[in-house]
Amino acid sequence: MANSEIPTEQWAQVVEKTGGPAVYKKIPVQKPGPDEVLINVKFSGVCHTDLHAMMGDWPLDVKLPLVGGHEGAGVVVAKGELVKDIELGDHAGIKWLNGSCLACSFCMQADEPLCSHALLSGYTVDGSFQQYAIAKAAHVARIPKELDLEAVAPVLCAGITVYKGLKESGARPGQWVAIVGAGGGLGNMAIQYAKAMGLNVVAIDGGAEKGEACKALGSQAYVDFTATSDLVADVKAATPEGLGPHAVLLLAVQEKPFQQATEYVRSRGSVICIGLPAKAYLKAPVFDTVVRMITIKGSYVGNRQDTQEAIDFYARGLIKAPFKTIGLSQLQDVYEMMHENKIVGRYVVDTSK
Amino acid sequence: MANSEIPTEQWAQVVEKTGGPAVYKKIPVQKPGPDEVLINVKFSGVCHTDLHAMMGDWPLDVKLPLVGGHEGAGVVVAKGELVKDIELGDHAGIKWLNGSCLACSFCMQADEPLCSHALLSGYTVDGSFQQYAIAKAAHVARIPKELDLEAVAPVLCAGITVYKGLKESGARPGQWVAIVGAGGGLGNMAIQYAKAMGLNVVAIDGGAEKGEACKALGSQAYVDFTATSDLVADVKAATPEGLGPHAVLLLAVQEKPFQQATEYVRSRGSVICIGLPAKAYLKAPVFDTVVRMITIKGSYVGNRQDTQEAIDFYARGLIKAPFKTIGLSQLQDVYEMMHENKIVGRYVVDTSK
Amino acid sequence: MANSEIPTEQWAQVVEKTGGPAVYKKIPVQKPGPDEVLINVKFSGVCHTDLHAMMGDWPLDVKLPLVGGHEGAGVVVAKGELVKDIELGDHAGIKWLNGSCLACSFCMQADEPLCSHALLSGYTVDGSFQQYAIAKAAHVARIPKELDLEAVAPVLCAGITVYKGLKESGARPGQWVAIVGAGGGLGNMAIQYAKAMGLNVVAIDGGAEKGEACKALGSQAYVDFTATSDLVADVKAATPEGLGPHAVLLLAVQEKPFQQATEYVRSRGSVICIGLPAKAYLKAPVFDTVVRMITIKGSYVGNRQDTQEAIDFYARGLIKAPFKTIGLSQLQDVYEMMHENKIVGRYVVDTSK
Amino acid sequence: MANSEIPTEQWAQVVEKTGGPAVYKKIPVQKPGPDEVLINVKFSGVCHTDLHAMMGDWPLDVKLPLVGGHEGAGVVVAKGELVKDIELGDHAGIKWLNGSCLACSFCMQADEPLCSHALLSGYTVDGSFQQYAIAKAAHVARIPKELDLEAVAPVLCAGITVYKGLKESGARPGQWVAIVGAGGGLGNMAIQYAKAMGLNVVAIDGGAEKGEACKALGSQAYVDFTATSDLVADVKAATPEGLGPHAVLLLAVQEKPFQQATEYVRSRGSVICIGLPAKAYLKAPVFDTVVRMITIKGSYVGNRQDTQEAIDFYARGLIKAPFKTIGLSQLQDVYEMMHENKIVGRYVVDTSK
Repeated sequence: MANSEIPTEQWAQVVEKTGGPAVYKKIPVQKPGPDEVLINVKFSGVCHTDLHAMMGDWPLDVKLPLVGGHEGAGVVVAKGELVKDIELGDHAGIKWLNGSCLACSFCMQADEPLCSHALLSGYTVDGSFQQYAIAKAAHVARIPKELDLEAVAPVLCAGITVYKGLKESGARPGQWVAIVGAGGGLGNMAIQYAKAMGLNVVAIDGGAEKGEACKALGSQAYVDFTATSDLVADVKAATPEGLGPHAVLLLAVQEKPFQQATEYVRSRGSVICIGLPAKAYLKAPVFDTVVRMITIKGSYVGNRQDTQEAIDFYARGLIKAPFKTIGLSQLQDVYEMMHENKIVGRYVVDTSK
Repeated sequence: MANSEIPTEQWAQVVEKTGGPAVYKKIPVQKPGPDEVLINVKFSGVCHTDLHAMMGDWPLDVKLPLVGGHEGAGVVVAKGELVKDIELGDHAGIKWLNGSCLACSFCMQADEPLCSHALLSGYTVDGSFQQYAIAKAAHVARIPKELDLEAVAPVLCAGITVYKGLKESGARPGQWVAIVGAGGGLGNMAIQYAKAMGLNVVAIDGGAEKGEACKALGSQAYVDFTATSDLVADVKAATPEGLGPHAVLLLAVQEKPFQQATEYVRSRGSVICIGLPAKAYLKAPVFDTVVRMITIKGSYVGNRQDTQEAIDFYARGLIKAPFKTIGLSQLQDVYEMMHENKIVGRYVVDTSK
Repeated sequence: MANSEIPTEQWAQVVEKTGGPAVYKKIPVQKPGPDEVLINVKFSGVCHTDLHAMMGDWPLDVKLPLVGGHEGAGVVVAKGELVKDIELGDHAGIKWLNGSCLACSFCMQADEPLCSHALLSGYTVDGSFQQYAIAKAAHVARIPKELDLEAVAPVLCAGITVYKGLKESGARPGQWVAIVGAGGGLGNMAIQYAKAMGLNVVAIDGGAEKGEACKALGSQAYVDFTATSDLVADVKAATPEGLGPHAVLLLAVQEKPFQQATEYVRSRGSVICIGLPAKAYLKAPVFDTVVRMITIKGSYVGNRQDTQEAIDFYARGLIKAPFKTIGLSQLQDVYEMMHENKIVGRYVVDTSK
Repeated sequence: MANSEIPTEQWAQVVEKTGGPAVYKKIPVQKPGPDEVLINVKFSGVCHTDLHAMMGDWPLDVKLPLVGGHEGAGVVVAKGELVKDIELGDHAGIKWLNGSCLACSFCMQADEPLCSHALLSGYTVDGSFQQYAIAKAAHVARIPKELDLEAVAPVLCAGITVYKGLKESGARPGQWVAIVGAGGGLGNMAIQYAKAMGLNVVAIDGGAEKGEACKALGSQAYVDFTATSDLVADVKAATPEGLGPHAVLLLAVQEKPFQQATEYVRSRGSVICIGLPAKAYLKAPVFDTVVRMITIKGSYVGNRQDTQEAIDFYARGLIKAPFKTIGLSQLQDVYEMMHENKIVGRYVVDTSK
């Protein structure tokens, strides 16, 4: 079951040794196994994780040589014999979770991201920085055909991740959530998902410009950590009765915001950790955590259902994710800008250039 | 609505200044307000918190002079005009939560322990170390008449607290819970509540003798921290597929067990903090907490419903809590043994002596 | 603690015998008990339940003589000695649940509406069709001062009831809910609450005009039962993949819509019954209910927390409830229009006229 | 990946036309597909559903010719290339759900039984009344080797079903559940699962003998519908404060018990429908369902996780399921006894005879 026009060779960005660089070169196109699909990737978002994969600085082994990328949007061009619910020509997305066993106790409870046999795109298996990528059919994101593949790419990782965090927080419509790092790319998406879920938002970040952007996206309040003398008090003051937000989404990658979050979150509230600062520890006073019954919870990427839900919010026009597009051949330039912390918003690579 | 035989004076243990000692003396008997009851306390458990209250070493202001005690079991002898669902002669218990506003957003959601106007027995209001104590009628524990008042006293604090922790853990019947500090008074009760709730228990504590006791109470496994070279590995090995327990109950009052708990708890599992080591911090690596989606949660005392449920398990004969009884007049002796860490099991004071 | 300007007599509408009519006359003003407040009712919504109370056709005994009304908005003018969290001059609302014991197993779990000692405004105790009404302080709705008392009145029953139903449905933001009877007063509010909670709505009612109104309020689809040849198929077709809505809100007061709802609701979905057709039965085929794992659930009025949440959505400008105002003296006219089924939208009575 | 000793032919019971009979004959042994396993069935329980399949009297199409059976316990003797987590020689079970797509919105949320592409053993695909049966690897029950294959067979359908129903009821440890039909095979298992989950049981059935058996298994109370003049009152009286059980499990296959259940269940409680009386309707008064906030819920078979949990309770020795064993060749005799309602307990067929 394969399209006859699939080439045998393709362009890809290949990391050949830890530390990089990514090399733009021709490599063979793979064939899908019985439960896999081959996707002609049209566009792929570039995520900070891709840089971590190349640099090998996370406590998790990386495949080498490696084709990175885990926000790939494209068209299904071949599929294995067991794949029944996807047709050639369907639009589909490669996401961080490329596959999982679907049979362990985590998979059986819809927690595929916790599967000990999980395959990670652009990390333990080749990802979306190539023109033709393989993924387990049961795991590819289903993308409605009316969506723009270029624009939807960043939703496949950033969107799913913040949406999952909001779900895990347990915050109900009408309640308040503080978003730490609201002015960044993830933060901007988080504000929009939160609003679409009926939540009230206190945005937290640095600088007046970010504040304007957050309010334009719908956050009720903005606390500027570069300008406040008492961040904890300001966040609480922004919520009804000064009781603090019901949940906090920690997208920042420093240690300090974590401790503040446990101080301003409402009693019985949840602090959701999403950002992954290298080697950081979360720390909270036991006494306060106990007598205020605070929950601190890690939220990783979404499962398959979360993926479809996050895409559905996007498809209904509720989420905008600004991006810039360049050719796949220029990926290394993006890594360098990333490394120098010069990127605002998301970069998307076009695999045809 | 009051019994004519209520005396105007009574024996009590009164802390007159921070640091103590408790003084055994006669003080007046109070009259209940419209929404209160007067309880003729027969027996009262003695808890470590009572010592903290006398020493004033918690970050929470204490009433002075103070009658301590928050595990008092007795008989209702007078009640206010608004009290409809309690009759004179009913058996009732004074617990840590003496009263709350019943109208704030926490009380309206059955989280009375988080009420900012909560009255705390033996801490912000006089408690059960006297013969006649006042409590808000809506908050006193209802004790079935067939129960022994002497034996039920420790359930009113220790029992409720561990039962609440188990409920908050979200562990379902058939799942596994590790209990840190299983060999102590709280720990022993926690094992019994866990078994009665259909849970499997890994007991953790120090010494072979405690291990025997834990197994006799029904724990499937015992890990001795004084004997193991790798506690994390041992706890995991004791659970199915080596995945670790679904929940951990932290009754210990040191910092170290907290960090270990986040290591051996199953992915998606919960670490429930109950013990209140002074000035301690809980600490966990962000990376692991996120990618394993671990929950860390503080659990304080139970609400009124938890109280009745905890008593109901006890009433059905599923919980044994060993205790020794001495006269109320000898309370200071108990504090001294407590201070010297010489107590095994719970002490109960008899207010008639 | 009472305002000196409270008169001793006031105007009220009094039902003196089953079947009515309501008589406009002067009656004494009551004094609040220790845990009560006296509210100077400014406006009160008129609900179908008020007519049922007068006619005595529900299987629940009514007080006689009776002052009806349970959507009263006004100003607190006196309070009992135990009332600490409400000040004279505060705005407050009389709702269906006038009081409850706050101590039974239902009240302890925040299910006050299920309390067997519940006091029902305008049914088992006098309600809001008078200038000065009594309610238990713990139960009155807190109304922010910036809200218009005339406009907020209908939220106190209709708003709370539909909001509670949506909460009970378990539908999450992004999911779909069908609202049966969407074109009526309750239905219109339900559409708005659903949208504010991030839900997608299929409105169901009769006639093109109602359809236009439902879409203007934000429903994604409208199914006209007077025009469709297959209502079940049409409702399913309006939802993603034709799987049917995740939840159904039954506001209609006929039996037929109930059976249809169990047919078009998604497998694992919930059918929430709110409307109270006299003597009606709900009926569903066992086979389908079991193999599709359908939930059918009754939802009564909200508890105190639901009340504050429903008002909060209204206060944020997300809910509009059209109404017409007439003098309290003309209440009987409203009952007659109601009896003849001539009312569109809600009537509010002004107690000063 | 297959054992060389697998024969090409085997004994099976084949239904060749609607209405039966089952014919004992030799048929070919199939080969597993890439995601399947071949199980050498040793024993298989016989369920009422098998008779329905042969008679074709359910509103669901049946495969013909058909090998029935969906409680098969045996040994894995061959597997497809994609099967990684099962080894040849492992013990495994064929259950009602033979396979599902694992990719639809139901499968993605761990509701495989609701998958519209579900394969049903002994109904839409051949089942366990043969010596070698095929199943999707992701769906076979994992059976620990220390368990007796003969005894575990009935757990694979009856056990899972009642366990699932108890989970779906939401009843928590310490709460009360009424089991209607407690004296039958399913009912006996339900009592044992309920006890193991920390629940209190009111058993309901007919006759003193069944009552003795129910109490021996641990039910706190027994209500004999052949002896009581007011079943509703008796069930309520058996529970604390006479409020009724928190949940009801309906295993009976008549209509009447359903209506009674909605009367005696506690307010806010759940009535769980499991039994499948042909063409029956569930019926409840709307008024009571709404004002008491009752939930009525269908519970079908368990998902894969429920399966492993149900087996785990059995493996810990908490569940006994009495059975009689006969040869597979005598299956038609069992159907005849079943048809004549002569069976007490479960029959298991031995495929070697």
